[in-house]
Amino acid sequence: MSDVTAPGGTASGSPDSAELVMRAEKLDGEDELAAVRARFALDDDVVYLDGNSLGALPHHVPTRIADVIEREWGRLRIRSWEESGWWSAPERIGDRVGALVGASPGQVVVGDSTSVNVFKALVGAVRMAQAEDPRRIEVLVDAATFPTDGYLAESAARMTGCALHPVAAADMPAEIDHRTAAVLVNHVDYRTGRLNDLAVTTRAAHHWGAHAVWDLCHSAGALPVELDRHRVDFAVGCTYKYLNGGPGAPAYLYIRSDLQERFDSPLPGWNSHAEPFAMEPAYRPGEGITKARVGTPEILSLLALEAALEVWDDPAVTIERVRAKSLALTDFFLECVGALVPEGVVESATPLDHGRRGSQVSLRCAGAAGVMEELIARGVVGDFREPDVLRFGFTPLYTRFSDALRAARVLAEVIG
Amino acid sequence: MSDVTAPGGTASGSPDSAELVMRAEKLDGEDELAAVRARFALDDDVVYLDGNSLGALPHHVPTRIADVIEREWGRLRIRSWEESGWWSAPERIGDRVGALVGASPGQVVVGDSTSVNVFKALVGAVRMAQAEDPRRIEVLVDAATFPTDGYLAESAARMTGCALHPVAAADMPAEIDHRTAAVLVNHVDYRTGRLNDLAVTTRAAHHWGAHAVWDLCHSAGALPVELDRHRVDFAVGCTYKYLNGGPGAPAYLYIRSDLQERFDSPLPGWNSHAEPFAMEPAYRPGEGITKARVGTPEILSLLALEAALEVWDDPAVTIERVRAKSLALTDFFLECVGALVPEGVVESATPLDHGRRGSQVSLRCAGAAGVMEELIARGVVGDFREPDVLRFGFTPLYTRFSDALRAARVLAEVIG
Repeated sequence: MSDVTAPGGTASGSPDSAELVMRAEKLDGEDELAAVRARFALDDDVVYLDGNSLGALPHHVPTRIADVIEREWGRLRIRSWEESGWWSAPERIGDRVGALVGASPGQVVVGDSTSVNVFKALVGAVRMAQAEDPRRIEVLVDAATFPTDGYLAESAARMTGCALHPVAAADMPAEIDHRTAAVLVNHVDYRTGRLNDLAVTTRAAHHWGAHAVWDLCHSAGALPVELDRHRVDFAVGCTYKYLNGGPGAPAYLYIRSDLQERFDSPLPGWNSHAEPFAMEPAYRPGEGITKARVGTPEILSLLALEAALEVWDDPAVTIERVRAKSLALTDFFLECVGALVPEGVVESATPLDHGRRGSQVSLRCAGAAGVMEELIARGVVGDFREPDVLRFGFTPLYTRFSDALRAARVLAEVIG
Repeated sequence: MSDVTAPGGTASGSPDSAELVMRAEKLDGEDELAAVRARFALDDDVVYLDGNSLGALPHHVPTRIADVIEREWGRLRIRSWEESGWWSAPERIGDRVGALVGASPGQVVVGDSTSVNVFKALVGAVRMAQAEDPRRIEVLVDAATFPTDGYLAESAARMTGCALHPVAAADMPAEIDHRTAAVLVNHVDYRTGRLNDLAVTTRAAHHWGAHAVWDLCHSAGALPVELDRHRVDFAVGCTYKYLNGGPGAPAYLYIRSDLQERFDSPLPGWNSHAEPFAMEPAYRPGEGITKARVGTPEILSLLALEAALEVWDDPAVTIERVRAKSLALTDFFLECVGALVPEGVVESATPLDHGRRGSQVSLRCAGAAGVMEELIARGVVGDFREPDVLRFGFTPLYTRFSDALRAARVLAEVIG
């Protein structure tokens, strides 16, 4: 495999390429987040552009989890629910996630999968909207949504007596009306990387008395979300992408503080009870965001996430810097692809407009599945999404501009 | 703290006590499972009788999880979903759990919390029963149920248009009738340790065309369950008690194979889709038990459970031996309590009849919360349950007869 800085290979000897190598070096040299990469288990053999599917391992996580297993579980055993802070972990870690998505404390709880949280949020949203006006009988869902959101939205609609209507995210504001109980939109489209307008859609929902549920899977940790500022009602997201929480790390649910009182959970597990150990036969919801909990949290996965979030404690790691680098990386990758890949072979599905772009670049091409296999074989790890999308995720915490160039060069070799 | 084999202390010098010491030594000497204790992280300072809340750590789990984190996540990253078998883990581990609860392969899937699985099972059960006869509009729930089952049953009933009726588990067979859609019963009562009659109640449900949902939290890994033999419809359970899967280890759901085709999940997440990576907008359930999956599984917690289950691979560790030892342990503990604790101070809430007993002993006494605090301070770890219950769980894999005696002796010291 050719090194980015070395000449040779199909396109690397071209004048374009030499200039791009210098540009990559300069950008990496000026990168304020460059030092963060050393905190992750990465090697230079692979360009890992699949952090939007599974984030890389922060080096310090194994030590922390070894302590959780050997000391907290192994030696303290049951005492750890109190003494090691296991019981309060969902809210404590929720606040840490909240800080990364513009939520002040007490509004985010971590636990369950994104799918389960979509169900909780959407049923909760519909119940609230219908309590005010029972004529609100429609749920609108982002037509290009990641599938699980759509499947759960269908179930939530069915179980609350609503109809479900798929609507293009861009058209959502215009489609909401007095019949709308809730809308469910992906902040960043998983396939194209398009960033949807959270402020405008949320405002439109509120105008009609509907509630907006946002899926932040592809935006949390990659760009500023500003949930509080835009008065978002509900949000859900996973933590194993840009938050690097580990495989299947628990998801989270945000419920705006002034809505929590009215939140009526469809999954009122004992962990959400006002006094879980009173073992009361009748359900009495806990205060605040606690009422969005369900059952016993999966502690090992939960505490791996907590450890992973420590990367964000570094004052140099701000979401603004992450966003700036994300845009610079994706700009540069698109530029490299434009320079190195023959015209017309690939087409970007990702908006060029910064205001409409997440932290990935999706390129459409013929035979995309085979192309991605070959890229991976050559050490450039992205992923393939049906029907024809090469997806490259750029995690600003650990991706270098030289990685972006190398990915474009290998793509040119494979596809050119 | 007095050692079991040493004379001294309030009751240990009595003739009764000397004989009990010899009995404990003899029983431990004859115990076919005695060697299994060495596989667990336990020390002789503490008598751990809370394995029915959080099972002890098997020694080999930390090494396995270190490998999952450092190699599978850290180095293979996204490739591990296939190469490390992450994707198929819920069904693979489900089969291992199934083997311990009398379920042939393909009927158990691991994932989510018990609470979430109660919801899936109960909604699924009601939908099936109503599809045959819409007049089935009642759900019966074990009146003494662990609270979360009751809370989720209420939600499931509400969301399927049913009424919920709490019924004493013993009366359940007589209370089921043509209006019953589903019954939800705890196999072993968490508070009293009473073993409910799975065969009779399941048969009664079937007689009326209703479906039986069993909660196995306090029976799986402690006694033979025989799900297939009794044609149980659905079962759920946690894995962090007698299965020693770790704090908040994922729960499981059993759906009898001939019912799976008709199972209509209220939580149809993308992991349960026939082709998850086809990313189809329309939901198409997967084959078999896979359709009971929801979202992305919490891999670290899931694989810790898988490792923990290896303890059961030892041919010496059979559920029949576990059951025999469980009954012998609880018999012996009750005998020790009878001999050492002054009459009338405690009263057993646990049935003496072996056919009605789980693997715990629950003693009622005045000031139980304070008594348990003092027991724990003196190295005997059980737990307190409202309103007046001292709960002692006996995990046959690692609890010795000498532990039972020591617990009774310390109880006598504290309470006598």
